[in-house]
Amino acid sequence: MREVGIIGVGHTKFGNLGRVTSRELITSAAIEAIEMANINKNDIDTIYAGLLSPDIFEHQMHSSPGIPDYLGLKNTPSTRVEAACASGGLASMNAIIAVGSGMYDVALSVGAEKMTNLPTSHVTEALAMCADDIYEVASGLTFPGAFAMMARRHEFEFGTNSEMRAAVAVKNHKNGVNNNLAQFQKEITMEKAMNSIMIADPLNLYDCSPITDGAAALVFVPWEIAKKHDGPKVKVRSFAQASDTMSLHDRSDLTGFATTKIAAKKAFERAKLTPSDIDILEVHDCFTIAEIMAIEDMGFCKKGEGGKITLDGDTSRDGLIPVNMSGGLKSKGHPIGATGQSQLVELFKQLNGLAEKRQIKDANMGMSQNLGGSGSTIVCHILEGIN
Amino acid sequence: MREVGIIGVGHTKFGNLGRVTSRELITSAAIEAIEMANINKNDIDTIYAGLLSPDIFEHQMHSSPGIPDYLGLKNTPSTRVEAACASGGLASMNAIIAVGSGMYDVALSVGAEKMTNLPTSHVTEALAMCADDIYEVASGLTFPGAFAMMARRHEFEFGTNSEMRAAVAVKNHKNGVNNNLAQFQKEITMEKAMNSIMIADPLNLYDCSPITDGAAALVFVPWEIAKKHDGPKVKVRSFAQASDTMSLHDRSDLTGFATTKIAAKKAFERAKLTPSDIDILEVHDCFTIAEIMAIEDMGFCKKGEGGKITLDGDTSRDGLIPVNMSGGLKSKGHPIGATGQSQLVELFKQLNGLAEKRQIKDANMGMSQNLGGSGSTIVCHILEGIN
Repeated sequence: MREVGIIGVGHTKFGNLGRVTSRELITSAAIEAIEMANINKNDIDTIYAGLLSPDIFEHQMHSSPGIPDYLGLKNTPSTRVEAACASGGLASMNAIIAVGSGMYDVALSVGAEKMTNLPTSHVTEALAMCADDIYEVASGLTFPGAFAMMARRHEFEFGTNSEMRAAVAVKNHKNGVNNNLAQFQKEITMEKAMNSIMIADPLNLYDCSPITDGAAALVFVPWEIAKKHDGPKVKVRSFAQASDTMSLHDRSDLTGFATTKIAAKKAFERAKLTPSDIDILEVHDCFTIAEIMAIEDMGFCKKGEGGKITLDGDTSRDGLIPVNMSGGLKSKGHPIGATGQSQLVELFKQLNGLAEKRQIKDANMGMSQNLGGSGSTIVCHILEGIN
Repeated sequence: MREVGIIGVGHTKFGNLGRVTSRELITSAAIEAIEMANINKNDIDTIYAGLLSPDIFEHQMHSSPGIPDYLGLKNTPSTRVEAACASGGLASMNAIIAVGSGMYDVALSVGAEKMTNLPTSHVTEALAMCADDIYEVASGLTFPGAFAMMARRHEFEFGTNSEMRAAVAVKNHKNGVNNNLAQFQKEITMEKAMNSIMIADPLNLYDCSPITDGAAALVFVPWEIAKKHDGPKVKVRSFAQASDTMSLHDRSDLTGFATTKIAAKKAFERAKLTPSDIDILEVHDCFTIAEIMAIEDMGFCKKGEGGKITLDGDTSRDGLIPVNMSGGLKSKGHPIGATGQSQLVELFKQLNGLAEKRQIKDANMGMSQNLGGSGSTIVCHILEGIN
């Protein structure tokens, strides 16, 4: 497969965006990415779109042709991919494979979700359908419950307590203050994080990411083209995807995800890198415990020490490995299909010195981890800055 | 992109299959394809799944990891693609790109839908959501209505009458008699077809494909491997995808699909072939008028003559270009995500002399056309038999 680069990114405001469709949000993010890439929009050969369920959120299936339609690109191939909250990461991955194959020269990937149309209870039900409907959802399990069980087990095995989880939320809210596209731009205290209302014991309000509208987009071209591009760019060093059982009861361990371990290991192997080569991480903190498990499973600390190193500040902007400088899902927001895309947009900005007040000095190698369901799908990307 | 071949196919019975999930149907079709390919299932590197809306039909999102889970392949990457009724064709196309890229050596594509859980009115509403929800669905347009408008306009411009449309249904029902996996295995008379109950004027019951459960699967490998394979095989000569506006009112012509014309033309160009090289066609006859428009737009007859040549028998099994020997969507059934896959399974069988009573003598080159929405997505494939 030939090497691939990214030359443009776009990102809408994340939040409750009112009367707008995912199609309009995608259009907005895509135009920004196309303008940054400085390409003629008609040069786009194919589009991949990550959306969880416009079916349920917007009473619209077959969203994909609506994207070239609204961009004025009537006949450009456009394909929706869905893998729960990893839909956005998989849209990028398939755009990379499309360009890497040599079949297409310019691929646009987009991701979006318009979630705030529905009441919270309906959103929670819709998201729960990304777990195993037959065995888990029918028994009343929703994602706060699933991740609460993981948090309980992690606490039992490794002593990861509410203070450590709260440290994730406090850090990510602090980072989000510097991201004017984030849903929340406000710091929270440890005390507030630890004493907010209970959602699913032991997870409280500030352990959970919010319900969000938003979109993000990226433009992919062969690296041979990208490296000569007069403008910001990154090289795709590697990607990897893994699946696991739908149901938690089929797994031997609840304190992490086999999928994260496998996908991260493959991404490192393909890029010929190790965790020590990574300068900045964007991981899938749908719940605070998920960030802790992610940095452990990816190899950025020993198993069981993710909570401790977060509390120690190792994952903060001045720490050993800055995690979720964008604010993460917790503070930036989590418009499902957009999230994996948004992670790569943040890495792109960081690796090009475009991250403004969030900028990490000398960030050269970035990695993402995007999670679907209760970890049944994971996709990781490693991007390298070249400027 | 390296060349790709197919070495195994699987196909469940199509029909009202009762208490079964799409996951189980996919497992069944996939096992059959894996056995025919004579590979170790653990050699599968990636999976692409075409499903329209397990969200609405089965209260299950994130279907993709459930596939390796049920196949005992826990960590194999698995991605769902959706483009309305073209979801199955796009699953295959992305499996081809995945193998063609060199990133993966063995790809499984599957497609399925479990539709009969819901009452007909709910299925009709769900399918309508594949049109433009904002402008069309909200105004009361469902697909029988959309295709009825096309049929009316085709009749106005070219004189394509109810007898010509009925000839499509009669032919496809006749073909379906020879397909023991078809939903309907019964012939119908022209009189019955023309006098059945009206659905959306001028389309009556026998102009419309049914509501169906079912699944199909294919195994893709590099052609270098496939050509040495001791067993049935075909070469993927080309594929092409195109998009069009979501809404019919944004198009200048209702008598055909720009997408079919573009995708077919590209597929022919990439394969360095013309319609005269094709021995057998599987096209998307969701309504009888759709088959007539497809053979015109693909270049198998002049525009406006599709109805006439069908009535003349040119598309029957002994005609110039046999169309829908499988029975087509009309008689074989139309489990949305499975349909594009099922078309390729039929071509594979025909090109390997495995089509039993449906077999077309000396079929060497086959082509498919898979349609999504009101033609907003089209994907075409050309397959070549080698035995």
